[in-house]
Amino acid sequence: MSKTVVMDVAVRFGDCDPAGIVFFPNFLRWLDAASLDFFLQNGVQPWRESEKTGGVAGTPVLEINTRFVKSATYGETIQIHTTIDEWRGKVFFEKQLIKRGDDLLVEAKVTRAFVSRDPATGRLKAVEAPADIRARCE
Amino acid sequence: MSKTVVMDVAVRFGDCDPAGIVFFPNFLRWLDAASLDFFLQNGVQPWRESEKTGGVAGTPVLEINTRFVKSATYGETIQIHTTIDEWRGKVFFEKQLIKRGDDLLVEAKVTRAFVSRDPATGRLKAVEAPADIRARCE
Amino acid sequence: MSKTVVMDVAVRFGDCDPAGIVFFPNFLRWLDAASLDFFLQNGVQPWRESEKTGGVAGTPVLEINTRFVKSATYGETIQIHTTIDEWRGKVFFEKQLIKRGDDLLVEAKVTRAFVSRDPATGRLKAVEAPADIRARCE
Amino acid sequence: MSKTVVMDVAVRFGDCDPAGIVFFPNFLRWLDAASLDFFLQNGVQPWRESEKTGGVAGTPVLEINTRFVKSATYGETIQIHTTIDEWRGKVFFEKQLIKRGDDLLVEAKVTRAFVSRDPATGRLKAVEAPADIRARCE
Repeated sequence: MSKTVVMDVAVRFGDCDPAGIVFFPNFLRWLDAASLDFFLQNGVQPWRESEKTGGVAGTPVLEINTRFVKSATYGETIQIHTTIDEWRGKVFFEKQLIKRGDDLLVEAKVTRAFVSRDPATGRLKAVEAPADIRARCE
Repeated sequence: MSKTVVMDVAVRFGDCDPAGIVFFPNFLRWLDAASLDFFLQNGVQPWRESEKTGGVAGTPVLEINTRFVKSATYGETIQIHTTIDEWRGKVFFEKQLIKRGDDLLVEAKVTRAFVSRDPATGRLKAVEAPADIRARCE
Repeated sequence: MSKTVVMDVAVRFGDCDPAGIVFFPNFLRWLDAASLDFFLQNGVQPWRESEKTGGVAGTPVLEINTRFVKSATYGETIQIHTTIDEWRGKVFFEKQLIKRGDDLLVEAKVTRAFVSRDPATGRLKAVEAPADIRARCE
Repeated sequence: MSKTVVMDVAVRFGDCDPAGIVFFPNFLRWLDAASLDFFLQNGVQPWRESEKTGGVAGTPVLEINTRFVKSATYGETIQIHTTIDEWRGKVFFEKQLIKRGDDLLVEAKVTRAFVSRDPATGRLKAVEAPADIRARCE
């Protein structure tokens, strides 16, 4: 059983397009925010802090597969349900559902990697998922 | 052999995130713009026009699968290459590559449907790809 | 004494630019959302509803003057304080402060007009502030 | 006589709101891009480069006053005309007009400061406009 974190989003007028519905890239903005929120809600330190001590500096997206089922419009509040399905070395697989109550709006599978900053070169490189982060999130 | 249309995008400071690279949902904004541009460059009427006479009112995204290979930053110009891989009834499959010269940055497969507006109810419904649009785009 | 409504905004990673701070146009997105929220929190009907019966269809911005005092970054929650300073015929003047607790981040003066849709032509035209809306918001 | 630089913007579907017109904060995104473009077109080094040698690291906005005259919609190409009206110590004043051919859409007055990074603390601080930058832009 893996943990699920739910983040609310209030859909605003400016998030919607001339068809009156959410412009789909905005769903991806919210998926990204919900992914970060997942770690924070599970008690993981902000990347800004962990980066300072040579730890994780972020979790860039490698791949995102998104299926759009129903639309949403401004004035509605929607919920983003995030869970990590699988951990595989330096990579992990998120499942994210965007719902409006019981209605499924968007289903997403996201592949991300943990990266830290090489102290010598300052460049980002993929690293194994730290054990303490896994323990908090599984 | 299917047609390919290339659209340039100048990456701006405000498209980039605190890591200094394009915030990934912005790539999807550009994929959407390039999809619309594909039809216009092939001589298809704007949906706003065709909608008035009962024709196509738009091509909403059903599914989008995106793989992020390399990042981009502001000051760079990138190219979005769009082609339609397959037509299947009311649905069509786009292949979109975002490149910086020869470098592949993002690879996307997008499923979209043609919709028109039901004159009785005003609601959108999926319709077969019009033959003249297929002829212009294949 | 005029009413003030406060709306919270959680600043996200993707709202920030390569300098690590909120990209300033995003402050204006939130000012717009807070302006709409002001009316709803004061019990005014959504414009989508009032528009159907020939009432207000929206409050487009005519002018916005914004002074940026301090920056904000992701992980912070900020508050947008909205009040209407003056009503003048078809136009009204909002004062909006963006604060982080006691810290002032942004000060904005916004001029907006009430518009409704002409039933004959379907075009938007400026209208006097409806008395019931003024009564709820003053 | 001061120099004017004109930058074109193609308005896209996703830049527009449910009223079918450009969501006004997007005009400010383009004003920001045009401000940066003004310096580059006049032969000023990118801030990323000048920052490395202790020079200008950016030109943050202190104040922006914007008047919205006419709307724009997707499919249109608009032009942003940027000039610097006045230089006053560490601060400069831009005048920016957004036009569609001869039609004025938006008029903006923007106050910005030059900043560089203090080598000791790494913090940004306002600095006098470098003479070579003024010479290129006046």
